[in-house]
Amino acid sequence: MKYFPVFSLLASMCIAFGHAANPAEGITASTNVPEAAYPCVDAQSRATFKIHAPEAKDVKVDICGRKYDMARDENGVWSATTDPLVEGFHYYFLIIDGVSVIDPASGTFYGCGKEASGIEIPESPDASAYYTFDKSIPHGQVRECKYYSETEGKERRCFVYTPAEYETNTNSKYPVLYLQHGMGEDETGWHEQGRMANILDNAIAAGRAVPMIVVMDNGNCSHIFGSRPGETMEEFGASFTPVMLNDLIPYIEKTFRVKTDRDSRAMAGLSWGGKETLDITLSNLDKFSHIGSFSGALFFLQGGLENAYNGVFKDPKAFNDKVKVLFLSMGSEENFGSAKISKALTDAGINNIYYESPGTHHEWLTWRRSLNQFIPLLFK
Amino acid sequence: MKYFPVFSLLASMCIAFGHAANPAEGITASTNVPEAAYPCVDAQSRATFKIHAPEAKDVKVDICGRKYDMARDENGVWSATTDPLVEGFHYYFLIIDGVSVIDPASGTFYGCGKEASGIEIPESPDASAYYTFDKSIPHGQVRECKYYSETEGKERRCFVYTPAEYETNTNSKYPVLYLQHGMGEDETGWHEQGRMANILDNAIAAGRAVPMIVVMDNGNCSHIFGSRPGETMEEFGASFTPVMLNDLIPYIEKTFRVKTDRDSRAMAGLSWGGKETLDITLSNLDKFSHIGSFSGALFFLQGGLENAYNGVFKDPKAFNDKVKVLFLSMGSEENFGSAKISKALTDAGINNIYYESPGTHHEWLTWRRSLNQFIPLLFK
Repeated sequence: MKYFPVFSLLASMCIAFGHAANPAEGITASTNVPEAAYPCVDAQSRATFKIHAPEAKDVKVDICGRKYDMARDENGVWSATTDPLVEGFHYYFLIIDGVSVIDPASGTFYGCGKEASGIEIPESPDASAYYTFDKSIPHGQVRECKYYSETEGKERRCFVYTPAEYETNTNSKYPVLYLQHGMGEDETGWHEQGRMANILDNAIAAGRAVPMIVVMDNGNCSHIFGSRPGETMEEFGASFTPVMLNDLIPYIEKTFRVKTDRDSRAMAGLSWGGKETLDITLSNLDKFSHIGSFSGALFFLQGGLENAYNGVFKDPKAFNDKVKVLFLSMGSEENFGSAKISKALTDAGINNIYYESPGTHHEWLTWRRSLNQFIPLLFK
Repeated sequence: MKYFPVFSLLASMCIAFGHAANPAEGITASTNVPEAAYPCVDAQSRATFKIHAPEAKDVKVDICGRKYDMARDENGVWSATTDPLVEGFHYYFLIIDGVSVIDPASGTFYGCGKEASGIEIPESPDASAYYTFDKSIPHGQVRECKYYSETEGKERRCFVYTPAEYETNTNSKYPVLYLQHGMGEDETGWHEQGRMANILDNAIAAGRAVPMIVVMDNGNCSHIFGSRPGETMEEFGASFTPVMLNDLIPYIEKTFRVKTDRDSRAMAGLSWGGKETLDITLSNLDKFSHIGSFSGALFFLQGGLENAYNGVFKDPKAFNDKVKVLFLSMGSEENFGSAKISKALTDAGINNIYYESPGTHHEWLTWRRSLNQFIPLLFK
């Protein structure tokens, strides 16, 4: 009977996360691993972090652009409580004697070019309903798909959301939204951090959005924060274009029951993915009819609107006839230029829709809200 | 134009992983995040780890039951090279001034009750072909599905592998294998660490296994390494039974095109999931016909074979008529009792198949091989 000893060996590699959270410090964050009571979040949206590190000399928590010193108690447990944080999802790291690492108590989320800790600061039930699982409605699925890219000469991965009715209406074909993550993130971002499946499920069940397929791929086709030797940042962004046009779209249209006309094809993205969206769609308007750029439209005005994207904006009527939706958004607290660009486009006679997320920065709540505003506009 | 400064801010949270691996130290591990050159693995299956930690006083790497001291160079980069490691997948942690954390250079894998670093020690192309992506064959999908559990009163998640032909043979129904992870792991384990989708794709494409659906859920229904107050370890394991029988199976049979007779339903699991498999199937033989326990059969003989599972083994002929496959396995280097139990069963007239994975411990290569041996036996 060697069973228990083996389990003990496994357990010896592991942390016991210990006690329940002190009610004064709030409730356990939903983003923690199952056993971890901390971090927790109080009613003022302050997060309290703890870690047992008796031999460490200096421990900090790095969240929302600020590093908080943690204080050590007599048992070697370090803790810190933040100022009130904006609601929604934030990446964070612990800094242990100068090394930035994830918190063992946190689930991990791919961001910043590596696995990061994340914490969900809860909103009110009403405010968060649109991205929360609702047991009373049907649920779509998020499928991990592997395909071979001739462009890159290797296996690639994408995630595909199919709406609930895809399983039962087996003769129906669906329009497709291609949805891109930000810089340093990957194809898991919209699903994990962005809660896109809940947003789609809820909007479709309420009749706010038409049933659609959503495809999420990895837009980092060479290095994440740099470029291949000799490659500019512009070229880095452009390297996703042939993968998407020549490998991904054909794979999706071969594998899923989708509509393949341009009126049934949309693309959107956040931050760097918003720039990719504009680069790809505005140069390929024969393929895309609906465009969304969330916190991401900033190279737009370089060289003047008239010259942007080979002059696509020179003829507003032609543009407006072709592009059913051009949607720009940003958080009210970030310094992206979406509002300015929207105004410049409007002044030039280009139809567009602008959305500003109140009180949010360059962060996932801005993009959850943007997606929720964008999808009702599609394929109508 | 605030675009670049914002990206710089994001980048400032991030590590630059730096240079390419020294060829003498091998090739970059496939389990790393995209930018990280280290850890890498040499031709003798030795892994070299590096981390920049100029302020740390003591750094170790904890892998395969051993802690290796890392040495600091003049730039504050710590490194260590292991002894040759068994091929396949291993969890590991860095220990920075006494705190066990993941390596920022690694992807994360849920194991040990938290996110863990992982490293793939490559086998030869021939040996690894069965769990490697093959671009020349059709590929199934792994779907993340959310469902509501009445038993737990909350949302649950499972992953469902559908074979490639599921998309096109839309009138076909498929048999189902329920496949469980080990203790401290979760429903992501078989897919991420186990490479189950590649194993199924390859076996189905070669005609070695029939097309089947594979369902992976979370067997940790209360605490991971403990129990609810008053709950024994046995009861902890048993708590998955009502979730599986009353919530999961009905959800799968309602949502997917599956065969629902007992001859078309199998269950298998590794380690703790192997015990769960025996607990659930041997007490519910009206529902299951094919059973696999990988490194997991160890409570089996407590109280004697005759008394196990309410006497299910007392009548070998009745058992053999009912159970089409009873499969037990373990790694040759682990001290689990599968061989002994297989022999006891055989001596008692109970048909069973035993597989021993050469040279492997209580680890994922044992279980990848076990799955590859098990699936050809199913539904035939």
